[in-house]
Amino acid sequence: MQPNSPQLVTTIDELRKKLLEVRRAGRRIGLVPTMGALHEGHLSLVLASRESCDFTVVTIFVNPTQFGPDEDLDSYPRTLDADMRALARCGADLVFAPANSEVYLPGHQTWVEVDTVAKPLEGSCRPTHFRGVTTVVMKLFNMVGAEAAFFGQKDYQQALVIRRMADDLNVPTEIHICPIIREADGLAMSSRNAYLSSIAREQAVVLSKSLRLAEELVDRGELDAGQIIERMREVISAADLAKIQYITLADPQTLEPVEEISGETLAALAVVVEDTRLIDNCLLLPGK
Amino acid sequence: MQPNSPQLVTTIDELRKKLLEVRRAGRRIGLVPTMGALHEGHLSLVLASRESCDFTVVTIFVNPTQFGPDEDLDSYPRTLDADMRALARCGADLVFAPANSEVYLPGHQTWVEVDTVAKPLEGSCRPTHFRGVTTVVMKLFNMVGAEAAFFGQKDYQQALVIRRMADDLNVPTEIHICPIIREADGLAMSSRNAYLSSIAREQAVVLSKSLRLAEELVDRGELDAGQIIERMREVISAADLAKIQYITLADPQTLEPVEEISGETLAALAVVVEDTRLIDNCLLLPGK
Repeated sequence: MQPNSPQLVTTIDELRKKLLEVRRAGRRIGLVPTMGALHEGHLSLVLASRESCDFTVVTIFVNPTQFGPDEDLDSYPRTLDADMRALARCGADLVFAPANSEVYLPGHQTWVEVDTVAKPLEGSCRPTHFRGVTTVVMKLFNMVGAEAAFFGQKDYQQALVIRRMADDLNVPTEIHICPIIREADGLAMSSRNAYLSSIAREQAVVLSKSLRLAEELVDRGELDAGQIIERMREVISAADLAKIQYITLADPQTLEPVEEISGETLAALAVVVEDTRLIDNCLLLPGK
Repeated sequence: MQPNSPQLVTTIDELRKKLLEVRRAGRRIGLVPTMGALHEGHLSLVLASRESCDFTVVTIFVNPTQFGPDEDLDSYPRTLDADMRALARCGADLVFAPANSEVYLPGHQTWVEVDTVAKPLEGSCRPTHFRGVTTVVMKLFNMVGAEAAFFGQKDYQQALVIRRMADDLNVPTEIHICPIIREADGLAMSSRNAYLSSIAREQAVVLSKSLRLAEELVDRGELDAGQIIERMREVISAADLAKIQYITLADPQTLEPVEEISGETLAALAVVVEDTRLIDNCLLLPGK
């Protein structure tokens, strides 16, 4: 039996009309915001939504305002047909895939901006990135009016920034953060993995390898952040196509760097492999 | 017969719980955001809400983030008992009067900011004012989830900024702008009128008088903005306690100054009378 394809809508009016019916039927709405080019990571968010909601909306929108001028907006993979098939298989109910002109009014001039937690790491490498993310996510929250929204921990800082925005602005949507989904060799799934040449793909495993090493070191009692970062750096530097943008061990709430690991600690890194910028992270738990 | 006093709630949890019942009963919710010290202008917004909604929520919150460091946050009039009596008379259903700590989380760091239309006039005199307004209004929209919200035209630029924010962020609440309510002599009602000494109160009439003169000049065919502003300036300068901050004739949508009046035009001004900063405005219609 063929799975039912989710309904595809492209205008905000259609979306609101459809969701009004769903809401009137007393069904709990889950939202999974994506930029398409869906992989198992995205699909795990759909499954998480289906577990706690009655109706799952997936948005597919490559949001121009979160790309910097020299970034990959134009080349970002767009694979709507394949995305629809994947979403049919995992039981999404509705897909909202609007054009840019449907999302941004002419003369758009309103921005939602989170301050401190959006500044380091990704915010420092990509200065207008989070402003674009929080603005479009606030717009999607307002369009959909979901009871819950689902984000991946792969974009750890993004999830933290969105949760802070939702708390600070009293957004009536619960924010759920779901685990990173990895390839068999450990590489965190990302739509940008499609950019990797086969040799770069092989070398990209050093990101997750360095995180596993950090976990092992902490398990063995190493608590000096500088030492751990140094050992992670060695792992990554063994890949000749890899250039480190940052490696940090930081407080998982404030993202302030830690010198000594004394509680749950975020290990996060950004590495350019060949021409592709990849990020990954894990939470370190000393004394496990 | 005593009119029913509206229910007073002070926490977001209580507010949401109460409004969930209202929404489940299929009633349309109207929101009137205020800083209290209510006058007939505010009450006209409550009446407008009652005309198009089934349940009217009035919020009373002196929002600290919209006051500059040298402004009147501490002295701003707080008159909750009188406000509750006035709201009982005009039939408000629920009053939300939270403490600062209920509205702003520790470490609040998310701001909603409108760009171009928030920059001139009030934005230029009060640089962080509109950021505070749009942030708290977005929070109130998210807390209340109203079908419609009501603002006064007295704060013309504020209304424009809020409407722009609502459009740009797809806020699912209709924005209604209601006419200015004036004292018998023409002074626009404002909670800050309470600051005026009796001599300043008399002289404060020059704001509305200058606007009426502008209307008369346009009716008589004067279309040169510089000429009209010059005549308005003379009217205001006749009051020795009045110091003009700005007088502008501007496009009512973009707030860009106009030189020649060729269509509907905003006349807006800010004047400090004695120690009290007052604003007023009207829309000029040539060829009426």
